[in-house]
Amino acid sequence: MAIDESRKLMENNGTLEADITQGGCMKIEELNRYFEGNQERITKEWIELLSIPSISADPAYDHECKKCAGWVSDHLKRIGFNVDLIQTETKPIVLAERPGVKGKPTVLFYGHYDVQPVDPLELWKSEPFKPEIRDGRMYARGAEDNKGQFFYFLKAVEALIESGTELPNLKLVIEGEEESGGEAIAAALPSLSERIKADYLLVTDVGMLARGLPTVTIGLRGIAALEFKISGAHHDLHSGTFGGGVLNPAIVTARLVASLHDDNGKVAVPGFYDGVVEVTEAERKHLDPPPFDLSILENQIGAKLNGGERGITPLERMALRPTLEVNGMGSGYQGPGGKTIIPSSATVKLTMRLVEKQEPKKVVEAVVAHLRSRIPDGMKFEIVESAAPGGAMRGGVSSPGIVKAVEAIKKCFGRDPVLHWLGGSIPIIPDMAKASGADAVMVGFGLEEDRIHAPNESFGLDQFKDGFLFCGEFLSSL
Amino acid sequence: MAIDESRKLMENNGTLEADITQGGCMKIEELNRYFEGNQERITKEWIELLSIPSISADPAYDHECKKCAGWVSDHLKRIGFNVDLIQTETKPIVLAERPGVKGKPTVLFYGHYDVQPVDPLELWKSEPFKPEIRDGRMYARGAEDNKGQFFYFLKAVEALIESGTELPNLKLVIEGEEESGGEAIAAALPSLSERIKADYLLVTDVGMLARGLPTVTIGLRGIAALEFKISGAHHDLHSGTFGGGVLNPAIVTARLVASLHDDNGKVAVPGFYDGVVEVTEAERKHLDPPPFDLSILENQIGAKLNGGERGITPLERMALRPTLEVNGMGSGYQGPGGKTIIPSSATVKLTMRLVEKQEPKKVVEAVVAHLRSRIPDGMKFEIVESAAPGGAMRGGVSSPGIVKAVEAIKKCFGRDPVLHWLGGSIPIIPDMAKASGADAVMVGFGLEEDRIHAPNESFGLDQFKDGFLFCGEFLSSL
Repeated sequence: MAIDESRKLMENNGTLEADITQGGCMKIEELNRYFEGNQERITKEWIELLSIPSISADPAYDHECKKCAGWVSDHLKRIGFNVDLIQTETKPIVLAERPGVKGKPTVLFYGHYDVQPVDPLELWKSEPFKPEIRDGRMYARGAEDNKGQFFYFLKAVEALIESGTELPNLKLVIEGEEESGGEAIAAALPSLSERIKADYLLVTDVGMLARGLPTVTIGLRGIAALEFKISGAHHDLHSGTFGGGVLNPAIVTARLVASLHDDNGKVAVPGFYDGVVEVTEAERKHLDPPPFDLSILENQIGAKLNGGERGITPLERMALRPTLEVNGMGSGYQGPGGKTIIPSSATVKLTMRLVEKQEPKKVVEAVVAHLRSRIPDGMKFEIVESAAPGGAMRGGVSSPGIVKAVEAIKKCFGRDPVLHWLGGSIPIIPDMAKASGADAVMVGFGLEEDRIHAPNESFGLDQFKDGFLFCGEFLSSL
Repeated sequence: MAIDESRKLMENNGTLEADITQGGCMKIEELNRYFEGNQERITKEWIELLSIPSISADPAYDHECKKCAGWVSDHLKRIGFNVDLIQTETKPIVLAERPGVKGKPTVLFYGHYDVQPVDPLELWKSEPFKPEIRDGRMYARGAEDNKGQFFYFLKAVEALIESGTELPNLKLVIEGEEESGGEAIAAALPSLSERIKADYLLVTDVGMLARGLPTVTIGLRGIAALEFKISGAHHDLHSGTFGGGVLNPAIVTARLVASLHDDNGKVAVPGFYDGVVEVTEAERKHLDPPPFDLSILENQIGAKLNGGERGITPLERMALRPTLEVNGMGSGYQGPGGKTIIPSSATVKLTMRLVEKQEPKKVVEAVVAHLRSRIPDGMKFEIVESAAPGGAMRGGVSSPGIVKAVEAIKKCFGRDPVLHWLGGSIPIIPDMAKASGADAVMVGFGLEEDRIHAPNESFGLDQFKDGFLFCGEFLSSL
């Protein structure tokens, strides 16, 4: 089991009993007992949910997405929720509510019932929508992302209700387009903002830094994207005839890309760092020294963590500093052998990861202005695509929600969690936090080995149980 | 006809008669008469030659290449040559000789009987090896390159022999691998050097700068090539998780490419310009002012001639200055939409065009050393391919061969030719000039519209005749 070792450590210390003495709430051991007593049924239900091929990116699966929304909706009703199945222009949104004990805070939970496509199908050892348990892991598309991770929350609520625990007010938003743009929920948010007002926003659609390392994700970077094209001649030119005659779009483009950073790895675009909130001393304590051995990560990926801004530690660079990366770049002939041409054009795909309080749109504008001012005479500059999906989110290390989550993890697993700022972006979370006014708490039990989005996605039964325990303890402690 | 206008102009001035009064040689009008009297037979023979699919790149056509070498060999014997069909490891080389009048110089002629592949076949209006005359042009693969352009030389020799003209010693090398690497001739050259010793090396495998603009090509650039790869992590990384953490191979590569030139367009690689022979005043006279309107060229290609080294005129930059160009560059995701990755690698294909007396191998070494010294810690630098096929060749504007060619053109077409340094490279020519000790004379009648190497290759019957006249006049005048 993922965090078994820590838990055993804790139990051996005898701290378990001492720590869970609050009245009206379910003890860890009771949650444990409930889970074990009901595991067979829970697994059966989970398999039912995983059997629905709710692929949101492919319109051919639209009816399966609707079916899945219906299944979740029915399930929530059975547990004891009032459910509103909101129809949108694309996939329905499940909005469920359950009033809690008076005076208790309100918890908003976010999840998604849609899954990624399954290609390449031939690499799956068992069929993606015929869930199969092998070696203590559930294999199926969505096993982890996000069906597994939202289903353990549902089961934790169920356990607490059945045990008569005094619960906070609960609101659930389970959408069906997270894997394919999330436009329906983004469009619906303004009209839902009153209904989703909450104190805490709980998200389990995240992971742990490593096995045995319970993790509280307390920040996300924002994201903005830009694809541009530089064009010269109408068509590729002979590099003998025209070499030294015309500007070479590949070289012009390389020079543009090179101009985006200075020699110290800092982004050299004027205005790029506008608004950037510097790292506080409290935050830095969680980054330096790093809470885990970075050389393990370096060995895993086969690269050194020596990129980005010089003089800043790796974890800070990877999550609390903005970055501008090239995702793709292409020009001219790329096949085998050679072709003596001056390419007619070159294309670059960029994404910027942003921190508070950079404004995604302004960042894109700044990069465009920087590039435009450097286009040599006679070269065409074209914006192929630009997007500013969302800004960053950064919870304080001692916000009420984070403190509660840390306590819950300590109780469940007997050790301090790692506080982690995610370098990636989940644009809907900051938007939902803003709309609901809630303090975001992101704790999930995903691991790299779950291979989400890839063939043979799986989720350990132990990870599922850890998630169940954490959610039970967190809700019960509020 | 291509140069008809010039010719008419000249005839109107009455200068034709005055100019061709030498004894023992064939007058232009006699050459003209011969051509017209024999055009039907000449065209029939030419069609026979074009009907042999001597594609050298495809081993399936090996026997056709042999057949073609045999055809050329037999044809030369009939004209009056001693022929040696040299067998090589690949395609045979036709080496033909005909002693001339005592005291006359020796002319070595170079041509090739092989042709390019024909794909895409569906774009041809008539079959590539069923020659067809439409609107005064011969349509067939090889119609121009090089069967058309070496066959008019053969026919000119035939005409001169039949008329009893006092001829120089003639040596012909017609090889069968020009379109596919030319390894056989390159390997054979050292052993042939005694047999091909000559005063002039005549090559017609070139073209005119424009219709009506007879052109003497008096230089070729050399060429060297390098493909390199920069690698970081084992696989593409998530650009959210690792953005700002690792070095991005696409950005590292862009910075490497950017480092290859300074801000004035000069190649910034130490040692790159070693040995470069500066342009003489005599040469510059032919470049500045340009002998034709450069804006026509700019409109044709849709780009300005503002690349290369600042402060140097376009024609000089495009032929008499060395250049380093990117032919292809690729990294990461280049499909539609976006993919948030840090690419694991990037690849760049470079070619350098060289001038006298740069050494191709040393240039490649200098570029590699420049790049290698800039590879950041932890990035892998790999040479995928490097090649140094050949150096440059540069005839003086008043070398004996060039003076003779200019005179012959004046006599044939009544106007001064343009002296042209080709920006491209034909590595075998400098090698052959060196081996034979001959003064290279490159005059061909190809035009852009001939579409050599492309579907529907063709050669104007007027261009063929112009080539015939020039060769006849040139040989006759020696």
